[in-house]
Amino acid sequence: MGPHPAVAAIRLAVRRVLHDILTEHRRTAAVPSHERPPSPLVLVACSGGADSMALASALAFEAPKLGIRAGGVTVDHGLQAESDARAAEVVQRLRELGLDPVVSTAVTVGREGGPEAAARDARYAALDAAAERHGAHAVLLGHTRDDQAETVLLGLARGSGIRSLSGMAAVSGAGGRYRRPFLGLDRQTARKACMVQSLPVWDDPHNADPAYTRSRLRHEGLPALEKALGKGVVEALARTAQLSRDDADALDVWAGQAEASVRDATGRLECAKLYTLPPAVRRRVLRRAAIEAGAPAGSLFARHIEEVDRLITGWRGQGAINLPGKVVAQRQGGRLVIRQG
Amino acid sequence: MGPHPAVAAIRLAVRRVLHDILTEHRRTAAVPSHERPPSPLVLVACSGGADSMALASALAFEAPKLGIRAGGVTVDHGLQAESDARAAEVVQRLRELGLDPVVSTAVTVGREGGPEAAARDARYAALDAAAERHGAHAVLLGHTRDDQAETVLLGLARGSGIRSLSGMAAVSGAGGRYRRPFLGLDRQTARKACMVQSLPVWDDPHNADPAYTRSRLRHEGLPALEKALGKGVVEALARTAQLSRDDADALDVWAGQAEASVRDATGRLECAKLYTLPPAVRRRVLRRAAIEAGAPAGSLFARHIEEVDRLITGWRGQGAINLPGKVVAQRQGGRLVIRQG
Repeated sequence: MGPHPAVAAIRLAVRRVLHDILTEHRRTAAVPSHERPPSPLVLVACSGGADSMALASALAFEAPKLGIRAGGVTVDHGLQAESDARAAEVVQRLRELGLDPVVSTAVTVGREGGPEAAARDARYAALDAAAERHGAHAVLLGHTRDDQAETVLLGLARGSGIRSLSGMAAVSGAGGRYRRPFLGLDRQTARKACMVQSLPVWDDPHNADPAYTRSRLRHEGLPALEKALGKGVVEALARTAQLSRDDADALDVWAGQAEASVRDATGRLECAKLYTLPPAVRRRVLRRAAIEAGAPAGSLFARHIEEVDRLITGWRGQGAINLPGKVVAQRQGGRLVIRQG
Repeated sequence: MGPHPAVAAIRLAVRRVLHDILTEHRRTAAVPSHERPPSPLVLVACSGGADSMALASALAFEAPKLGIRAGGVTVDHGLQAESDARAAEVVQRLRELGLDPVVSTAVTVGREGGPEAAARDARYAALDAAAERHGAHAVLLGHTRDDQAETVLLGLARGSGIRSLSGMAAVSGAGGRYRRPFLGLDRQTARKACMVQSLPVWDDPHNADPAYTRSRLRHEGLPALEKALGKGVVEALARTAQLSRDDADALDVWAGQAEASVRDATGRLECAKLYTLPPAVRRRVLRRAAIEAGAPAGSLFARHIEEVDRLITGWRGQGAINLPGKVVAQRQGGRLVIRQG
């Protein structure tokens, strides 16, 4: 008799990612072919919650079969009483699964960008540091399809276009360090896999705290949307993420090519050539040019770009337009000049 | 003292659209310039609800000032008891606003695509017929920003990509017949404008009937989403619609150009060239080719296109792939052949 379907599902998801990692490792390992390449190390980032505990168990099961070393890292955010004791407990559980090395790393969460963003920034910095310290080839993250659906809705609320609808990537970070094997699996499967493997899981009270946007979305927003639109909403949102990501990537490629073609011999943007581009491409070119001139990407909103775009499409002698980062855009003799003022 | 802000807002929205219509009319009116072009006719589609009554009142106020004739049409769907009496009442109210001609047209709603789609199809067919019978230049529709937000969420639930996130267009239909002046206005403004003008409005019980997806979305889904994500959700969804529409249009342009470039001298698709396209563009080219070969667009889903795409990106000797409309896709000697079998 094989494993429970939920366990089979999490293992398959991890096995696929480990295969990719192994292929890449063999391709890049700079050792003579007669020598055995050093066994790559893969870490799992584990909070002790159901998703990442399921991920850790699948990694512990699959990695040895492929000659991959498997370790774990847990981040103590220091935001809750006795978070250090909990981190020690997670370390213990990961060791019991056979992972080695297992490390706990404490971080100090700042305030920038709100509590959720600050915690995320601190967490990834700690994971980056742990990966580098141990020479890990990859860090697995336990985000599920449900997390992806929530991320798409959070992006939708920004209303800033398809890039923000594209959710989390299956592979991200410098050199593709972060991998998300569970993006196609639902949260219920991960939880079930823990249950049938008798793995104790920890429910982060933050996940149920209505002070957090994601928590409200998870417990109220998404269920109401499912009630209105039907059970397939989570899957539809996850599919939207993938399609939006591909579309946004393609349009970025186009904008990159277009940018070169709309500059004159001295590198200035020609308004007449910009005018002939499709609006979606033109606005991306303008955005790139503004960022290149020094406007911080995070402060550059759609309304800024629209105003610059009207210098091209609705020219009636407007004056210079001020953009974030003291960048100024103005039309001068058929050229669009964007520079730091 | 000027009009109430809500009334000023609906009139401004209609005035802008009437200006566009007038400009187009003067450009296309095939009469010698010394003759006065015939005055164009604009109809408002009116259910008697707050949105379309507000629209009718603004049209009645603005059209005469621009030398535009203003009429109205109401569609009796025959789905509710005494719907004919209500239609007669709407006709009466539109006449009281000074609109002329005003017509009521009864339709028979079929069943195809579900009750909402069937009612919509019947309604647009009736509006098309009324516009042609009266030689109307345009038909105004009362969809608001809230309707747009709902439409985006309905598209999101299909999970079929950014085209389905692009909502309703401000200008649509054959020759740009349909115009939606209120797409940037919220429903509350339309309702307020009716109230301060003492216009009686009719609340369609369908709009509150939880048997309808859109009604559930309006009364449960969207409010829950706003509660989780904040008050700007409707605006963010409407902005997403516009950005997605522009992006989808641009990618369609690209796919159209790419399609020509990946065919060989005999018009067959070259796999090696398809392979070099960005995935988002390649999938659009494959979709176009399948539709051209006879696959009905409405039955062609993302999973079909993905399977065809694997003939290009994951070739391991797969057999022919069956698509809707008896269309078959197969790889033959470096060429992708898509044809009706």
